[in-house]
Amino acid sequence: MIFRTVKYEKRGDFVSTTSPGYGITIRVEAATHSSPTSLIPAAMVRAGATLTALDVVESHHDRVVVDITCDTRDANHADEISAAISAASSDFLVKKVSDRTFLMHLGGKLEVASRVPLKNRDDLSRAYTPGVARICLAIAADKSDARRLTIKRNTVAVVSDGSAILGLGNLGPEAAMPVMEGKAVLFKRFANVDAWPICLDTQDTEEIIRTVQLIAPGFGGINLEDISAPRCFEIEERLKATLDIPVFHDDQHGTAIVVLAALLNALRIVDKDIAQIRVVLIGAGAAGTAILKLLFLSGLTHATVFDSKGIVHKDSPAQNPMRAWLIANTNHDNKVHSISQAMKGADVFIGVSAPNVITEADVASMAKDSIVFAMSNPDPEIDPALAHKHARIVATGRSDYPNQINNVLAFPGLFRGLLDAGVSKITDEMLAAAARAIAQCVSSQQLNESFIIPSVFDPAVSPAVSDAVFAIATKRK
Amino acid sequence: MIFRTVKYEKRGDFVSTTSPGYGITIRVEAATHSSPTSLIPAAMVRAGATLTALDVVESHHDRVVVDITCDTRDANHADEISAAISAASSDFLVKKVSDRTFLMHLGGKLEVASRVPLKNRDDLSRAYTPGVARICLAIAADKSDARRLTIKRNTVAVVSDGSAILGLGNLGPEAAMPVMEGKAVLFKRFANVDAWPICLDTQDTEEIIRTVQLIAPGFGGINLEDISAPRCFEIEERLKATLDIPVFHDDQHGTAIVVLAALLNALRIVDKDIAQIRVVLIGAGAAGTAILKLLFLSGLTHATVFDSKGIVHKDSPAQNPMRAWLIANTNHDNKVHSISQAMKGADVFIGVSAPNVITEADVASMAKDSIVFAMSNPDPEIDPALAHKHARIVATGRSDYPNQINNVLAFPGLFRGLLDAGVSKITDEMLAAAARAIAQCVSSQQLNESFIIPSVFDPAVSPAVSDAVFAIATKRK
Repeated sequence: MIFRTVKYEKRGDFVSTTSPGYGITIRVEAATHSSPTSLIPAAMVRAGATLTALDVVESHHDRVVVDITCDTRDANHADEISAAISAASSDFLVKKVSDRTFLMHLGGKLEVASRVPLKNRDDLSRAYTPGVARICLAIAADKSDARRLTIKRNTVAVVSDGSAILGLGNLGPEAAMPVMEGKAVLFKRFANVDAWPICLDTQDTEEIIRTVQLIAPGFGGINLEDISAPRCFEIEERLKATLDIPVFHDDQHGTAIVVLAALLNALRIVDKDIAQIRVVLIGAGAAGTAILKLLFLSGLTHATVFDSKGIVHKDSPAQNPMRAWLIANTNHDNKVHSISQAMKGADVFIGVSAPNVITEADVASMAKDSIVFAMSNPDPEIDPALAHKHARIVATGRSDYPNQINNVLAFPGLFRGLLDAGVSKITDEMLAAAARAIAQCVSSQQLNESFIIPSVFDPAVSPAVSDAVFAIATKRK
Repeated sequence: MIFRTVKYEKRGDFVSTTSPGYGITIRVEAATHSSPTSLIPAAMVRAGATLTALDVVESHHDRVVVDITCDTRDANHADEISAAISAASSDFLVKKVSDRTFLMHLGGKLEVASRVPLKNRDDLSRAYTPGVARICLAIAADKSDARRLTIKRNTVAVVSDGSAILGLGNLGPEAAMPVMEGKAVLFKRFANVDAWPICLDTQDTEEIIRTVQLIAPGFGGINLEDISAPRCFEIEERLKATLDIPVFHDDQHGTAIVVLAALLNALRIVDKDIAQIRVVLIGAGAAGTAILKLLFLSGLTHATVFDSKGIVHKDSPAQNPMRAWLIANTNHDNKVHSISQAMKGADVFIGVSAPNVITEADVASMAKDSIVFAMSNPDPEIDPALAHKHARIVATGRSDYPNQINNVLAFPGLFRGLLDAGVSKITDEMLAAAARAIAQCVSSQQLNESFIIPSVFDPAVSPAVSDAVFAIATKRK
């Protein structure tokens, strides 16, 4: 997910916990007599590490070599832990600190696999020349056969220009690759979709549009990713208008689907009607706008939106059609409020902005049974523990709190359904159906304040989304 | 390989044989008493089929269902065989004719595989958010880390515009996909290179160049394929000049490498010096020009070239730099000969043109111990059996004759070496080294008139080519 990387006023503080995303393995050589297997872990725990494994990799009569794996808070924390071991005893020598995340990414996360055997001449004659010539001629005679006889049937291009990578900002196409590869891994893992990352060496809207148009023949769908607003809107719209394969900007619509799913279930718990609730949303970028559009399509009538410059109102500059839509459809009373004023009495807070932009007092001032979706990642708009003191339901984008709003719930199944149905355009109805399908994966028995959204590893989700999208797509045909 | 698809004067005739590229499986239901397992195969063999398998798939007291698999000459031949079965007995009912080649291509020939596990939250935290953010930041800080931490290290884009697919001509990007997928399968099979097909919806030189430049960040190499001459020359040259990854036009340089390899070994047999021989080449397109360039770099001094308009000489129109090079470097005596006149006394004939453009008499008129490489595919410049009556060594592009000149011998190992060495530019020295490596895979004991080039399935070839290229690349650095 990308949210606005512009500066918001910071109004609170959030302390990170350790995460496997910052997992390290420290190799220490120690004198055998120095009790290394108890004293080293003890020093690490004191320094704040979360230990996950200890292996003695060498044992000699006078010395041992141990590998201790732990989660840390961040790169500095790893240095602190390493220093703590050295400080604990002059008998402890830190030999190497391996970053488990870097190890996982070494050499990239994808490979190409052949779906056909190539053991002998006969195989070669069929898979390649001369046999392949007939396949080419068949497709030349009927282009629609490409969906039957090539990988187009199951293939999605994951396209980014690297202009808005995660919450990190504009890092360029090379640095975008690890995310796009990860996305492709998720596509495969959760819906058997073959996705290939295409990171573009341009941030020019026209060049991006043209390049995607030109590479489209080999793909059955386009997943736009981490392209900054407002360019992402125009790129998506124009590609949708010109290509005969579905075009999806996950940062917008993937997020919107999962937020709608979570909100539908949250509203079931608090027994409120979407048409009656008041929503405050901070973050008027790609995700925020798409969320509101889908919520309005699903019955929402009242929303107030903030960006880094404050509340969106009738006199806000309408720099692009999306912003014009926000101005026309939100803040009906045209209030020029602060965030704190707007939060008073609101039923739902949705944050897709920056860390610590709302306060505990803001949440306390919300209506009874309030709902807080603080999705800035990794650090939310408010510490979820603080929010929970006052809100009935709290969701974040993080995996280490309940109710993770994670696009992985949506995009794999969505594209599975689109590809299976041979869809050329994604409709709002499909997005809403995907959201309902995700919401329904949480049964009435399971539904509670800490479980408004299924786990990303729930194997029922992707098929449910796929079936829902397929049903609508084939009905429309 | 693509050769010129323009019209050459036809001066002979070549009858195709059956090929597994045209393999079919015919399902027949027959009365049990009608001896179907002997009479059906007999009828098929009489119709010219090459039988490869017979399976009884259902057996009842009164009837059986049999699947008979055979190779045919072409699509019409398959119909004839089917008709022959029906005609053999009124008890035989042809239920289905399955084209085994089409079956192999159903759904495409590639898939994406994940190189990392994604079993639980910890995996997800490292492969994707939040852990992936650190990988992105590392690459943003040092772009060269992309070769270490992303798939760039091992990935090649197989790029075509579909303008010159095999010998079939301009069929467009969708119809090019089966060939490019096949190429990717070969890359993986023979050198563990991950190649992804990119078929472009444009045949505009500028658009092709720009698109390849823009998608380059995620790839470690570019393999251009089946792009028609003369555009392919400019596209390759300009991409080479602007990209920091190797750019290779396989139809030119892959063919050139394998021809040089075959020629080096053929000359060993006939004991002639490359500097002394006279070569006649027909087909002044992409492949022909690249072959001659590499042969001249390797010592060749005398060549005569023909295109569909006749001999290339000083007054031929120099439409592009490649043609200008041909005019400057071939036909030193500036003869305006016919093909037959030029063939008289020639040591080597190289055909990369069209079927049946030289005659038996032409070959008979060549020098003693003549060498004929008739590589038009599937039908060569002369029936190899006729050529063999007079030439000492005959090679073709076909898999059903000895001495197949097949690019598969070159491109996988070449790119393996380029990627492993992190090469940014391919040099002529590397191409020549690859050719020598292929030639040396045929030992003195193995070398004879029917074995001047190793089998495409010889597992020693790709590592030999890779090592040779790697050695030169790392020496140069």
